[in-house]
Formats: sequence, structure tokens, C-alpha cells
Amino acid sequence: MSASVTADTPALDESHDPALTSWVASANATQTDFPIQNLPFGRFRPAGLGGALRVGVAIGDQVLDLSIAASASGWPAEVMPALALLAAGDLNGYMALGRAPQRAVRLALSRALRAGSAMQPALSGALLPQAQAEMALPCEIGDYTDFYTGIHHATTVGTLFRPDNPLLPNYKWVPIGYHGRSSSLVVSGTPVRRPHGQIKGPDHAEPILSPSRRLDHELELGALIGRGNALGDAIGLDAAEAHLFGVVLLNDWSARDVQAWEYQPLGPFLAKNFASTVSPWIVTMDALAPFRAPFVRAAEDPQPLPYLDGAANRASGQLDLVLEVLIQTAAMRAAGRAPHRLSIGRTTEAAYWTFAQLVTHHTVGGCNLRSGDLLGSGTLSGPLPEQGGSMLELSAGGKRALDLPGGETRTFLQDGDTVILRAWGERAGARRIGLGTCSGTVLPAA
Amino acid sequence: MSASVTADTPALDESHDPALTSWVASANATQTDFPIQNLPFGRFRPAGLGGALRVGVAIGDQVLDLSIAASASGWPAEVMPALALLAAGDLNGYMALGRAPQRAVRLALSRALRAGSAMQPALSGALLPQAQAEMALPCEIGDYTDFYTGIHHATTVGTLFRPDNPLLPNYKWVPIGYHGRSSSLVVSGTPVRRPHGQIKGPDHAEPILSPSRRLDHELELGALIGRGNALGDAIGLDAAEAHLFGVVLLNDWSARDVQAWEYQPLGPFLAKNFASTVSPWIVTMDALAPFRAPFVRAAEDPQPLPYLDGAANRASGQLDLVLEVLIQTAAMRAAGRAPHRLSIGRTTEAAYWTFAQLVTHHTVGGCNLRSGDLLGSGTLSGPLPEQGGSMLELSAGGKRALDLPGGETRTFLQDGDTVILRAWGERAGARRIGLGTCSGTVLPAA
Repeated sequence: MSASVTADTPALDESHDPALTSWVASANATQTDFPIQNLPFGRFRPAGLGGALRVGVAIGDQVLDLSIAASASGWPAEVMPALALLAAGDLNGYMALGRAPQRAVRLALSRALRAGSAMQPALSGALLPQAQAEMALPCEIGDYTDFYTGIHHATTVGTLFRPDNPLLPNYKWVPIGYHGRSSSLVVSGTPVRRPHGQIKGPDHAEPILSPSRRLDHELELGALIGRGNALGDAIGLDAAEAHLFGVVLLNDWSARDVQAWEYQPLGPFLAKNFASTVSPWIVTMDALAPFRAPFVRAAEDPQPLPYLDGAANRASGQLDLVLEVLIQTAAMRAAGRAPHRLSIGRTTEAAYWTFAQLVTHHTVGGCNLRSGDLLGSGTLSGPLPEQGGSMLELSAGGKRALDLPGGETRTFLQDGDTVILRAWGERAGARRIGLGTCSGTVLPAA
Repeated sequence: MSASVTADTPALDESHDPALTSWVASANATQTDFPIQNLPFGRFRPAGLGGALRVGVAIGDQVLDLSIAASASGWPAEVMPALALLAAGDLNGYMALGRAPQRAVRLALSRALRAGSAMQPALSGALLPQAQAEMALPCEIGDYTDFYTGIHHATTVGTLFRPDNPLLPNYKWVPIGYHGRSSSLVVSGTPVRRPHGQIKGPDHAEPILSPSRRLDHELELGALIGRGNALGDAIGLDAAEAHLFGVVLLNDWSARDVQAWEYQPLGPFLAKNFASTVSPWIVTMDALAPFRAPFVRAAEDPQPLPYLDGAANRASGQLDLVLEVLIQTAAMRAAGRAPHRLSIGRTTEAAYWTFAQLVTHHTVGGCNLRSGDLLGSGTLSGPLPEQGGSMLELSAGGKRALDLPGGETRTFLQDGDTVILRAWGERAGARRIGLGTCSGTVLPAA
């Protein structure tokens, strides 16, 4: 990495060594999202037990229950204060600690779960199969902001909503964003009910209240804030990376017909706030250190204003992840068909701004971020039409139906459809790690 | 009131009797906002003592500290569970209880503070002068939604932002709203720093980062949610009133130059999220029962869609309050000049939708509201140009400077300006009650 990268930019250390294996056998499977190089955090309850949420680390197909594991002997003394927060279920508190103690915990977890670790006997009893863990939202999310960094998405959708004016003049200067709804964030697996809303056809004089007829998914990454900032204190770009704790997958379900009628002049509201689905495991920025890419503006695009520009951001500001959307309809499920891929693409080809730039822009006017706040990337569509991160794009605004296995077709989502988001990093010289899945099934309108 | 009004619509009882007086002498002053007919709730710490937030009730110029008062003997047994929540500082928990226990508490407080109450000796020690109370946000506010019900504001601002298209076609059908920022909500008295943001002049090819040059206030009422609803469960209009706990004043500070450049297509973001100021006392819907008005659509306007229409809402859906904005500049303060009135108006002439309609619309797609969530009315400007609830309106977009006492003029706000919002109900046959003040002083940009 560039010498100008600050100390808080994720860096490689022994925990990223692709040769590492774990004494948890499933973590060594080639296609697992959660090898020992990942070590993501989440919150769960043992199925059927209830009680307070616990913090766990995913390892292979297991969860290391930190409410139990923290009591094992063998942890380095320096990590005990941070482990105590995790053992108490306070993931937000842990996220707020900042990079140095978090890296020490990551290293300690890596060593403890590594093949040959002396802690194996003590930690074996702290493992729970993920199939027996009821996952919750990965942390307390006070505010949810959704950005619009997917330039191909913005261009395609802009064409549909405003044929004469697809990409507005501010797009290449301002990281466009708006505030989303926190209360209706749900964890992967939660069913999503088709919303009612006002819709108005172009040929009708008046709107009607109706279940949405153009229900859609949006493929997004979400960044979760680690340390926050005080109200009034902007976070400069060089410091921004240190405020990012990790990422999740985010499906920002959208009712396109409601959106089209309601969104002017103050933006989407009911079209988005009926539910947004979050994946349960926070993959840390530290775990993603091998999957970074330069941030480069195309020659024809303006350079970012100085407050959004910096050497570290140029050198490695982008995450480099593969993104995939799958669908499984009720008929496919009944027929035992596997989910069908709707699109696949790469973050580096989709996002016009980096998460560090989003942090800096969000706070440049003094707005405070709190530990656990969620920043959505916006829909990350690739440059090709078949790489659309929403049905709106894939179906050209509903005009071109997609063929699905078994003879079905889709423009927008039907009741019973399950949408599954996935993402992973894979690069020569690095162990593949994944973000897990973010899925939700559409229920009929009430 | 109409017989069709549901049981949860605020109703008059003995606590509203205008003849009631209190043994707290200052509550009997003619112009107090907090006579015994009001009894608003807030959260505070005794100045200099720190510690956990306590719940108090404003009475005259005093606070009844419920962490102390709840221990007095003489309370009816039926209110003890609700009082226990208040004594523990859990105002959100109390707000979620619903109308029946809240009315019982109101009645008990009214009787306890009434002239001649046998509880006077026991409660005297639970009073603290408001001047010695450090007020906090009145409750935990998870999500903040800002609506746009001020039709004169929407028309005037629309003319400035879109001269060809001031009031968009959806305005008279959809209660337009968007999600605001929770983290930067501050209580009255908190200074507000002038934000930086991207601004672009019409004659410039590129934007710059600059302190806002068009900083503005917005006069709003905020409704706080009492009982919430489960995700997926819409709240019908007849039930909506029961989910409203009370109202506060809200100044939705706005950077108009930032807003003009950033707001398309997803709405205001940094233009609004640097701070929004809330008054510290929640005046309950029960206290406001004497200050209700019919909700009537003008003949030329469309009737609300059926889900937004109902007999109770028509009969008494509107709040009827006087709203006032005052300014005190640094020079006025130095010269000992009193704050100067910028505008005065009435909610009934400003709001195109009722709060009950906002609750119903917000949830019609299944979005869940939580106890303590804040719904802003939007800027409540009257029909006359001099009744604008923002500088944008009063100065005609900055083109017409206002004259202030002492020879100063203003288009937008200057550093050192203090903006003060006030509101009160006054009607024949009812005791005047007020919402207190919502004030903030502009600090120079960092």
C-alpha cells in the first residue's frame, strides 16, 4: 500500500495469511464465507432459549459465543477490556473503541481459533452451530442513511424517471444521500410484506391506495460506523476510514409505483420505509484489508472537491467485492429448484464514491454519526444492462420480462419470491471471504 | 364534540376547568405557559448535579421532579404503575402506555397540584425552579420524520425553487414527508453552528465547499408518538389519534444554498441534518383537548382519499394554536433590546393535513412507529407573506431584506442571531396554555 496511507487504513497482518487454517473444520472448506481470515461479528440468541442478545463471531458453519468464550483462559491481557464489552453483548460499545484494540482482538481471535491453538479445548464449548442461532440485527442502528453511489443505477433509473434529464448536474459532485428509516430495518430471513401506498397511473386523474404493483429489491452494501463524532465536528477524509467498522449486505426494498408518485420534492418515503433487510454478520474493514482497490476518476469526470480527495483514498479507497443477486420463486421452491442468479458484478465498477468519502461528506456540515449508524451505498449496478441491481433496471422499467427457470417470467417481484444478496472478496494471494447472505421473502399485502 | 369521535380522541374533563388554580403560585400567572391545565412532561437534571435524566412536569416556573414526587403518599393506587415508570426516568415507557392510564395520571397530577390539595406539603420538596433544571431532549427519539403540511410554505418555496411548477401534482393527495436525522436533534438552548456544505451559484460552473450563506429557521410543530405499532400493521385514521402523545416546537434549521444544490432527486440531506432544535416540554394531546378545530378541505381542493378521511378527523382533527417566531440579534442583545417578532400565525390556517392523518399515512405501507418517534409538521406559514415561517419566505428568497429594530436588516440568519419559536392555545372558555420556547443561537462556522 502507499506510504501515504494513514495508520488507520486497514493493513495486512498475520491474520490475513491465506495459509491459516482453523481447528473448526468447516472453516477450512473452500467455499465458506467465514474462514479464519474473516471473523465477522454478529448478534444472536440460541434458538429457542430467548434471553438477551449475545455477540458471536462466525467461523465456518459455527458461531463462537463470546458471552462464553471470553471466560476462557489464554486470552492476552491487553484484549480483556474489549472482550468484556463483547461478552456483555455490547457490540456497539466495541465498535466505538477504534482500530487499535479491535485489531488486537482480531489477532487474538485468529490465534485462538487457529489449528493447533492451545485454547481449542476451552473454546470448543463456546461453539454453537449457526443453524441453531437466531440472528438479530448486527448492532443497534440509530440512524440509517442511504446514498446513491451506483452511477450506472443512477443513470438507468434517472432515464426511467426523467427521460430528458437522467443524471442530474449535482451527481458527479455531491455524494447524493438521504435519511432512511431505522425502525423498519430487519435482519436477513425476516419476511417482507408487500406494502400499500398511493399510486397513480399516467392516464388517471387521481391516485388510488393499492398494494404496490412494482415491488423491487436493491442490491447494496452497508457500512456500519465504529467510532462516532461529536455534533459540529467534521471528519476529514484522512480520518474517515478509522470511523468505519465493517460492512453488511443491504436490500433496500422499494415500491417503484409509490416512489414515482410521492418522491418529489423531498425524496422517497413510503416507497422505502416498509422494510430494509440487513445481513447478520458485520465483516470488518480489517478483514477486508486484502480486498481494496484504487479509487480513480474517469478522465471525463470532475475530480472530487478537495475535501473529498486524498492520497490514501486514491490509493486504496475502494472495496473490491463481487456482488450477486439471486431469486427463488415459490414455484422454484416447490419444484426444488436452486435460486437463480439475477445479476453479478463488482463494487469497483459500480460505486462512484468510497465509503470514506461518504463519511466525510455526511459530517462536513457537522452532522454527528454514532456507533452503529448505517450508511447504505445505494444500488450497486454494474455497467452492463444485465448487471442491474434492481428489477427496475433488469426489466427496463417493467417493459422487458425476465425469463426464469421453469418457464416463469418476472418484471417486478411477486408474492412468494425470495431475493438473496451475496458478496465476497476473492483475489490471488488472499483467502476468499464472504459477507454471508441477505435474504427476504415477499408476503402478500395485508 | 361529535358523537363519532372515538374514545381515544382527547376529551375535556375536570383537569381542563379554566377556574382551577394551583398551590404553586407562579402557575396562576395570566401569561404562564404552564398553568395547572397544562402539565407537560420533560426530562432534566438538576443543574450542576449530573446523574441520570429525571422526568418532570412543568408547573408555573417550577418543575415537579417525579423521581421524588412519586414517593409521596396520597396518589391513587391505580396510577402507581405509571408513576413508577416516570419515577424511573422512563418517559418513553410512559408514553407507550396509551390514553387511559395517562389520563388517570393527568387527573392525579391536577388534583395533587390544585390549590387546597392535601398533598401540597409532601410535594413541595419535589419542586425545583425551572431556572435550576438542565433540560434534555424530552424523550428518546428513534426516528424523526419531517412532513410538509404547510401549504403556504410549500407554495412559496416551490415558487422559489421551481418557478414554473410551485405546487407539485402530488401535494394535495399525499402527505409529503421524508426521514430526517435523529442524531442531531438538540434541545432548546443548544447553540447551532453554521454548517459547511457544497454550494453552487447559478453563474458558476462548479460548486465550492463553503459555510452556508443562506442559513434559515423553520417554524414547525412536532408530534411525539405514544404507543407504537408493529412492523406491517397499518394504523387506521380512527385509531391514529390514540398513538399521538403530545407536541413540541421544532426548528428545522436549513441551509438553503446547500439544499438548492443537493436536493434532487432524493431530497434534503446536509441542508437539514446539522441540527434540529426541539422544545423541552411535551404538551400532551390530552392537555390540548380544548384547542381542537374541525378539519375542512376548501371546495377547490380534492377530498382526502378514504384512508385519510374520517368523521372524527373532520370534526376535530386540527390543533388550533397560535405560532410565533422571534429573533434577537447579537446587536439587539448587546443593546438590551427584547426579541423582535418575525411572524405570527395559526396552525389552522397553515396545515393541510392533521397529525392523525400523518400517523395513518406513515404506517399505511406497514412502517412501524416507536414510542418517542418525532413527526414534524413542516413549516407552518400563514397565508400572508408576512406570516412566513422561514426567512426564505419572509425575504422572498433573499431578495427583500427585513428591517429589524436598531437599524439592522436581515435576509437570512447571521452569526449571533437567536431564533425563538413559541406557540400557545387561547380560546374563550379555556385557560391559555403554551408550549414554552424553542430557541437556538447561530454560532460562526468552524
